[in-house]
Amino acid sequence: MKAKVYVTLKPGVLDPQGKAIHHSVELLGFDRIADIRQGKYFEVALDAALTEGEARETAERIARDVLANPVIEDYRVEIVQ
Amino acid sequence: MKAKVYVTLKPGVLDPQGKAIHHSVELLGFDRIADIRQGKYFEVALDAALTEGEARETAERIARDVLANPVIEDYRVEIVQ
Repeated sequence: MKAKVYVTLKPGVLDPQGKAIHHSVELLGFDRIADIRQGKYFEVALDAALTEGEARETAERIARDVLANPVIEDYRVEIVQ
Repeated sequence: MKAKVYVTLKPGVLDPQGKAIHHSVELLGFDRIADIRQGKYFEVALDAALTEGEARETAERIARDVLANPVIEDYRVEIVQ
């Protein structure tokens, strides 16, 4: 079983890396881009013996405790087979 | 219109950052994790006047030329309203 974890900066938190990418993209001639924000993406391969509920609970705990900083970041967990 | 771009290392490409996270997670007591791989996630806000086709084409070009390194990374683009 696999969990996909998406971590994004909360709205309102400055994203200098995203701003830098946006600037580079504009210099390359892409002029119809309003904004770019960068986040993180993790694929967590879990023990196949876990039920979907256990897998979700484990992935949520890892996302909250390790992968995201809940003060400035939001996270979303998706379980796939 | 918004494009979500997911960039992941190709299968077979070593992911030392993912390995380090996996190791930390094991030290924290999560013992049912087989593997963790880290990727990148981008939210690209596009000009609202673009059609879905134009938005997808622009986002694919940005993903291929700027956000991903096609030698070692795969990317996936998803268009949302």
